[in-house]
Amino acid sequence: MKLLRVGPVGQERPAVLDDAGNLRDIGEPDIDGAFLASGGVARVREALERGDLPVIDVEGLRVGAPIARPGKIVCIGLNYSDHAAESGLEAPAEPVVFMKAPNTMIGPYDEVLVPRGSVKTDWEVELAVIIGQKARYLDGKEEALGVIAGYAVANDVSEREFQLERGGQWDKGKSCETFNPLGPWLVTADEVGDPQNLPLRLWVNGERRQDGDTKNMIFDVAEIVRYLSQFMVLEPGDVINTGTPAGVAMGMPGQPYLRAGDVIELEIEGLGRQRQTVGQA
Amino acid sequence: MKLLRVGPVGQERPAVLDDAGNLRDIGEPDIDGAFLASGGVARVREALERGDLPVIDVEGLRVGAPIARPGKIVCIGLNYSDHAAESGLEAPAEPVVFMKAPNTMIGPYDEVLVPRGSVKTDWEVELAVIIGQKARYLDGKEEALGVIAGYAVANDVSEREFQLERGGQWDKGKSCETFNPLGPWLVTADEVGDPQNLPLRLWVNGERRQDGDTKNMIFDVAEIVRYLSQFMVLEPGDVINTGTPAGVAMGMPGQPYLRAGDVIELEIEGLGRQRQTVGQA
Repeated sequence: MKLLRVGPVGQERPAVLDDAGNLRDIGEPDIDGAFLASGGVARVREALERGDLPVIDVEGLRVGAPIARPGKIVCIGLNYSDHAAESGLEAPAEPVVFMKAPNTMIGPYDEVLVPRGSVKTDWEVELAVIIGQKARYLDGKEEALGVIAGYAVANDVSEREFQLERGGQWDKGKSCETFNPLGPWLVTADEVGDPQNLPLRLWVNGERRQDGDTKNMIFDVAEIVRYLSQFMVLEPGDVINTGTPAGVAMGMPGQPYLRAGDVIELEIEGLGRQRQTVGQA
Repeated sequence: MKLLRVGPVGQERPAVLDDAGNLRDIGEPDIDGAFLASGGVARVREALERGDLPVIDVEGLRVGAPIARPGKIVCIGLNYSDHAAESGLEAPAEPVVFMKAPNTMIGPYDEVLVPRGSVKTDWEVELAVIIGQKARYLDGKEEALGVIAGYAVANDVSEREFQLERGGQWDKGKSCETFNPLGPWLVTADEVGDPQNLPLRLWVNGERRQDGDTKNMIFDVAEIVRYLSQFMVLEPGDVINTGTPAGVAMGMPGQPYLRAGDVIELEIEGLGRQRQTVGQA
């Protein structure tokens, strides 16, 4: 099932995309932690099967992020060996964890802003995990998969100078305004099936820059969720960005960082496609 | 003015402490970003002056964190030169920025839990800044001081092995369950006056461990807020932990890290006193 949110910023209404390609009102206040934790996905599925959900007219409506602002966005760094190599860093022995400010989250077609003073704004296509149940100290991978509500495409936009050359921790280059496009859909875990078999790709101005597959993750989705639950309490609606494959600007000849006017397109098979125009903050 | 929230976890009701030491109902839904951004502090002050606010009976009531869960908790590392030295690190050339998961926030007298598998759980008394207005790309220190709603005592509890020895970024040792006691009060900026003249102290089992003063910050409060606004959008209700002075367990002979049964007490002049008993997760 593909859940999404449509409407102006801050006034998004939740919807489901049916098999015929229609958007239907789900009759719930929002797609958020409370919705996910209270069995909202099952409620929508049953209502959809009963034919209870009215089609809505979405002509011209903006698509927002497919969930309301999360309690946290946790990120895994260097989780593909080819990206670790292009970054000049060793593949990690255990997951590298950092955070993005939750207010970086925007819709999949919203404008991405180059921060003021930035000369190294970069892209990262990533598989995002959306947590569906509270989780602490999970025992194993099966239990970890059981707390996942679904998946989405994320662009983990990053400012490399802020991240790596301005002292201290990566978060400084990860939390800028508009730095986390998410969506278009939250695709439920049952529909995705195996999260370790998803091609993911990214283009800038039509040129393919990233072309990876989640089967090449160093730490797989189940291990990431299990691992994180040893260090923090995961909550319904939380988002985990699971790392990016090779092909970011930092690792390319000439380092072609993003500039106003550039167009980023990214997709993960089964999870849909994003398109962002780059602007200047 | 001293604002606080009293009641069971998740059911806290907002209140104000008057000059006579009475707690009064403020007649607002909560103390959160919406309250601060909509002039809530001024409304409460006027109602208090008019004598409109009823005294409430707080006998036996728990004190929660003085604000609802924030959108983000941003932290400044190594912001006192004596703490940088005891950590074996150089004083930073610009602020070191990291994040804590917002769901680490607990009340000032709640139990702090040693995480499972932890042997290096540490304390850090800090001046917390609570943001009152949305802020991006602030121009200078005066403008920065203008977006601050108030201040509170924070214990930036930290697991040093998770933070420093488990690969990657500090956030891994900063976001464990219960790791951010806050309060007892949000003291409004006008009542605090100069935030760079506040003694801050911490005791473990009655022995003084930290004894600093905010005048010794490397980057002062106004500079921290101005600086952060260049890298992220600050929002009403956000919390900034501004760093800790020397005296943490990591820097002491024998490294006496926290164990279940320990008692932590901490205070900042004018901002009140916290007391936490340590438990085991």
